[in-house]
Amino acid sequence: GFASKSFEATLFPGDGIGPEIAASVREIFAAARIPVVWDEQHIGKTPDPRTNSMVTRENLDSVLKHKIGLKGPMATPIGKGFRSLNLTLRKELDLYANVRPCFNIPGYKTRYDGINLVTVRENTEGEYSGLEHEVVPGVVESLKIITRKASSRIAEFAFAYARENGRSKVTAVHKANIMKKADGLFLECCREVSAKYGDITYEEVIVDNACMQLVSNPLQFDVLVMPNLYGDIISDLCAGLVGGLGVTPSMNIGTNGLALAEAVHGTAPDIAGKNKANPTALLLSSAMMLRHLGRRQEGDNIQNAVLGVIAEGKYRTADLGGNATTSDFTKAVIDKLE
Amino acid sequence: GFASKSFEATLFPGDGIGPEIAASVREIFAAARIPVVWDEQHIGKTPDPRTNSMVTRENLDSVLKHKIGLKGPMATPIGKGFRSLNLTLRKELDLYANVRPCFNIPGYKTRYDGINLVTVRENTEGEYSGLEHEVVPGVVESLKIITRKASSRIAEFAFAYARENGRSKVTAVHKANIMKKADGLFLECCREVSAKYGDITYEEVIVDNACMQLVSNPLQFDVLVMPNLYGDIISDLCAGLVGGLGVTPSMNIGTNGLALAEAVHGTAPDIAGKNKANPTALLLSSAMMLRHLGRRQEGDNIQNAVLGVIAEGKYRTADLGGNATTSDFTKAVIDKLE
Ligand SMILES: CC(C)[C@H](C(=O)O)[C@@H](O)C(=O)O
Ligand SMILES: CC(C)[C@H](C(=O)O)[C@@H](O)C(=O)O
Repeated sequence: GFASKSFEATLFPGDGIGPEIAASVREIFAAARIPVVWDEQHIGKTPDPRTNSMVTRENLDSVLKHKIGLKGPMATPIGKGFRSLNLTLRKELDLYANVRPCFNIPGYKTRYDGINLVTVRENTEGEYSGLEHEVVPGVVESLKIITRKASSRIAEFAFAYARENGRSKVTAVHKANIMKKADGLFLECCREVSAKYGDITYEEVIVDNACMQLVSNPLQFDVLVMPNLYGDIISDLCAGLVGGLGVTPSMNIGTNGLALAEAVHGTAPDIAGKNKANPTALLLSSAMMLRHLGRRQEGDNIQNAVLGVIAEGKYRTADLGGNATTSDFTKAVIDKLE
Repeated sequence: GFASKSFEATLFPGDGIGPEIAASVREIFAAARIPVVWDEQHIGKTPDPRTNSMVTRENLDSVLKHKIGLKGPMATPIGKGFRSLNLTLRKELDLYANVRPCFNIPGYKTRYDGINLVTVRENTEGEYSGLEHEVVPGVVESLKIITRKASSRIAEFAFAYARENGRSKVTAVHKANIMKKADGLFLECCREVSAKYGDITYEEVIVDNACMQLVSNPLQFDVLVMPNLYGDIISDLCAGLVGGLGVTPSMNIGTNGLALAEAVHGTAPDIAGKNKANPTALLLSSAMMLRHLGRRQEGDNIQNAVLGVIAEGKYRTADLGGNATTSDFTKAVIDKLE
């Protein structure tokens, strides 16, 4: 069957703890006999004139060729003229949807219980247009761009995702009472798409109220869809409810099924190279990548083994309150694999 | 002394439960012998041609004359061409700072404990400019305006507020890694002002991370200062941490000390007129109003009585899990006053 076919995938280990957590994924995939051929890619150390960025032409071509990739954290060099590497990848690969499932990790206690929602963030426009200028000294305007094309596309994605994943509700997050035209257009697109999905409940919530509801009554939400900045804010808020970016998976999706799963936490330079990093976010992201390829069983196996080890509590990395090394944790996950 | 001098203040009872909670404030102020003369104002039922809004010239003049006011919830009529009444008041009165203290209500349990922070929101510009247009069909741009004038003014307000209220840290919330010019200008102004306040620690946090930190580790924050939309979002998020808008005070401050305290919850039409509303948010807002007038002791007396009644638990309104009526609660607060 399809699930046993081998496949190639781009792997960006990234910076800081990136190489260690990427090595953990490689080991666990090998032990799980997932027939992947990794095409390991490294961001350049000087700007590539063909891309005007540290992200090289080869980096982009690798993902475009394999149509699937996994990415560790990257440190964008500080200084004028450097664009965030994450944003460059999203932009150049037209990764228009950012999907972050948010759920409690069994056995890892936070203030919340039973959370199980997914944020779907429009990833290409909105407040991230980069269009800003100083009109007169001391007066800056920054343009938020909302288009019918991108809004309909992300709405369509959210509803299709909900249906495919057995979810029953999509909530659009907006501030259309203030940005009547911009967020109004976003809502209009969501409403149009919702009309085609009679099996999925459709709701709308104003962004400030959404945040209040998320911290007080998060179980009311299922799939949330929203413009870029609200998605940036709300996905981090949601990660905070269940333990932070170290345990939260993420995937960026583009046209024709192109997808780049990524751990969205930082490079943690303080613990880099010390065998202390927690590979959970990258592992759960790799499970999203597998499911996206139709390899649901393999994805579930990886995820169940990771969650099983954390739930048992014997091998937890320092960020989760334990003292396991990255290798201890990796080995424990491998032992747990069916 | 100043605190015994009588004063006039505008009172907007507002709509829905507004009149009942405003009556509660009146009764409690009378019992506490606070020598206020209320100038009760009602928003018009048809637009006032002089203001182009339901907010009448008399409404505005009353606040401008007394320089102090208290406002219940208002229902903005739905339909094109109606501007939010809250926004109209902020705009017409140049109420540039929105201050929302956020603290746990003793005895009213939420998932959080020991929260004690204040959000200071720029109230006049940013994403609330109202400048939007459709460039071509299906492409909308919405302008976020950040000015040196408004940013310095709110930064100055936040630091002065921190110092006056014995607080030790101001954190600026921004997304200057993306909106480099707009939020960059905001940060530049905050940094400049911070240099004049050597006694106050100054920090910066990116808005997405701020929300993650607020839900996981809120005790690290003291005073937060930010542009309009982030303030809208984060003040609601914070309210959610401690029990919602029904127990959260708020005050809008303008030039020359003009101030309008307000309950920011809704009009709750479902329970209006039924003697069921919780006057806590309006009462705590009235305490902010008194402190703003230099009547700190009177403000503290009201607040302590309100919190004392809630802490005891015998007289709680339905929203806090009790079955006290508005009158029961009001009477209990009066009994508790020194
Ligand atoms: C690193 C930063 C540019 C990025 C963003 O703002 O989108 C990050 O916060 C994220 O959510 O992936
Ligand atoms: C009612 C609405 C226009 C308002 C806002 O967006 O500012 C409200 O959310 C608030 O925070 O006071």
